[in-house]
Amino acid sequence: MREIVIGGAQLGPIQRAESRESVVARMIVLLDQAAKAGCGLVVFPELALTTFFPRWWMEDPAEVDQWFETEMPNAATQPLFDRARDHGIAISFGYAEKTSDGHHFNTSILTDTAGNIVGKYRKVHLPGHSEFDTERAFQHLEKRYFEPGNLGFPVWRNMDALMGMCICNDRRWPEVYRVMGLQGAELIMLGYNTPSVNSQDSAEGLEHRLYHSDLSMTSGAYQNAAWVVGVAKSGDEDGHPLMAGSIIVDPNGFVVARAQTEDDELIVHACDMDLCNFGKSTIFDFARHRRVEHYTRITAQTGVEYPE
Amino acid sequence: MREIVIGGAQLGPIQRAESRESVVARMIVLLDQAAKAGCGLVVFPELALTTFFPRWWMEDPAEVDQWFETEMPNAATQPLFDRARDHGIAISFGYAEKTSDGHHFNTSILTDTAGNIVGKYRKVHLPGHSEFDTERAFQHLEKRYFEPGNLGFPVWRNMDALMGMCICNDRRWPEVYRVMGLQGAELIMLGYNTPSVNSQDSAEGLEHRLYHSDLSMTSGAYQNAAWVVGVAKSGDEDGHPLMAGSIIVDPNGFVVARAQTEDDELIVHACDMDLCNFGKSTIFDFARHRRVEHYTRITAQTGVEYPE
Repeated sequence: MREIVIGGAQLGPIQRAESRESVVARMIVLLDQAAKAGCGLVVFPELALTTFFPRWWMEDPAEVDQWFETEMPNAATQPLFDRARDHGIAISFGYAEKTSDGHHFNTSILTDTAGNIVGKYRKVHLPGHSEFDTERAFQHLEKRYFEPGNLGFPVWRNMDALMGMCICNDRRWPEVYRVMGLQGAELIMLGYNTPSVNSQDSAEGLEHRLYHSDLSMTSGAYQNAAWVVGVAKSGDEDGHPLMAGSIIVDPNGFVVARAQTEDDELIVHACDMDLCNFGKSTIFDFARHRRVEHYTRITAQTGVEYPE
Repeated sequence: MREIVIGGAQLGPIQRAESRESVVARMIVLLDQAAKAGCGLVVFPELALTTFFPRWWMEDPAEVDQWFETEMPNAATQPLFDRARDHGIAISFGYAEKTSDGHHFNTSILTDTAGNIVGKYRKVHLPGHSEFDTERAFQHLEKRYFEPGNLGFPVWRNMDALMGMCICNDRRWPEVYRVMGLQGAELIMLGYNTPSVNSQDSAEGLEHRLYHSDLSMTSGAYQNAAWVVGVAKSGDEDGHPLMAGSIIVDPNGFVVARAQTEDDELIVHACDMDLCNFGKSTIFDFARHRRVEHYTRITAQTGVEYPE
């Protein structure tokens, strides 16, 4: 048994006017709860420090850059790192990253239990669009404000387990889980900011959208025999509702913990990494069963190529 | 609207002693029901003509070959083709195929509404093992009796839609749906013979296994915005239970029809191929969103490569 008690630290809404310091204080409250619950690892959502700013159209680069962090930790987040180290809890959270040479990424980091950053991931699958879209009920400008991640989907050894990360829309792409599964990933962590309404189909409905979120994570877990922890930023941000539905999924694809609110809320499960072993050595023993000679299209072509 | 009324023709058990002629008579009963229900296409299961013989250990090649068809249609199946053509119904079903040069495949075919074979698929992901396994509760010798398919995952234009096939264990592999999705597949048909008991974990349970079957097909449908029709051979074959759970899944990943029995049973749904359009042009617009430069491992390596 290799048990890690994992906390999924869902955040309620962050209004545009809320400061990073205020959000970090909320994250520390959740971290303290997690410590009391015996957690060894706590996962916070995507863009955990600010509102989901890609819903806002901005033309001035300086206005855009105010949402980005140029170093991590920094003054605003140092108290979170300090508290995590004090508790001996590893953490993962997302933020908008501006590099020293001016690149912009939607990033998440992972620390060890001593507060050292041991992994960084930059979101690969950016949803939405890059120019103002008059057809949509609201904007989703991730393709405008971020570049696609350039780090792939690494897997790190941490806490005697193999861990990887992805972010939000990445969770809908089976390629993401598989690339990590092919590195032996036992735990895949992700955060998301997912609107409760489809900007291109207002009739879709929240229940429908929560089902798709569940389906993406449960299938990714099952098909790679890995734990998946998906954590929302949720609730009403300046009139724009984000769905909740944070879950912890076991390596058989079953949801073992689920958030009940759209507010700051901690979900907890004692996750035995050895539960991955059966699936990885039987039905999803990749070395024995995969037939890569028939998968060529997956990497050889990006879009659809129709038969003649 | 491009509507095809599709029938999933689940078959109950076929005992080892039952003849192909007897099975074909049962299939024709289902085909007649489908005609009355207005079906344009009927999907039968994997290895539809015989019992699931890979559970039996055989050493004599002649004994093995008696389960294989050397041509299609043949004397036993001609009445099925004739009736389908009379009804103007396209059909798909699976059978064990022995080629003229002696190769053995687990195969399925697809006809047009005039009874012409327009597509052939040979199962790529063979589960189980090739030698007698004393550790298992029962044998699953597909790797002994079949070679992995050599036709890839083609997609065909048929009935004004783009159709592909896979078989049984293939349905658990997201690569399968994606390779067809990358050819624009709007309908993916599959049959299965899935034991109700995990031969390596008798405690797993039927409910658990039905969930995995559903999860594999619903996620494959959603993530490729395609209809999926999965049809079981089910019930007790000579003391070996096979699960049922035949379903039709819409391009949003929702189950719209489900078998209620473990016997011969027809499920029907009027499937509008244009329901695929929204997903294929928005969230799963592959050309706009996929990032193949980060998927390299999926085709470059078969098994797991651990990080350092």
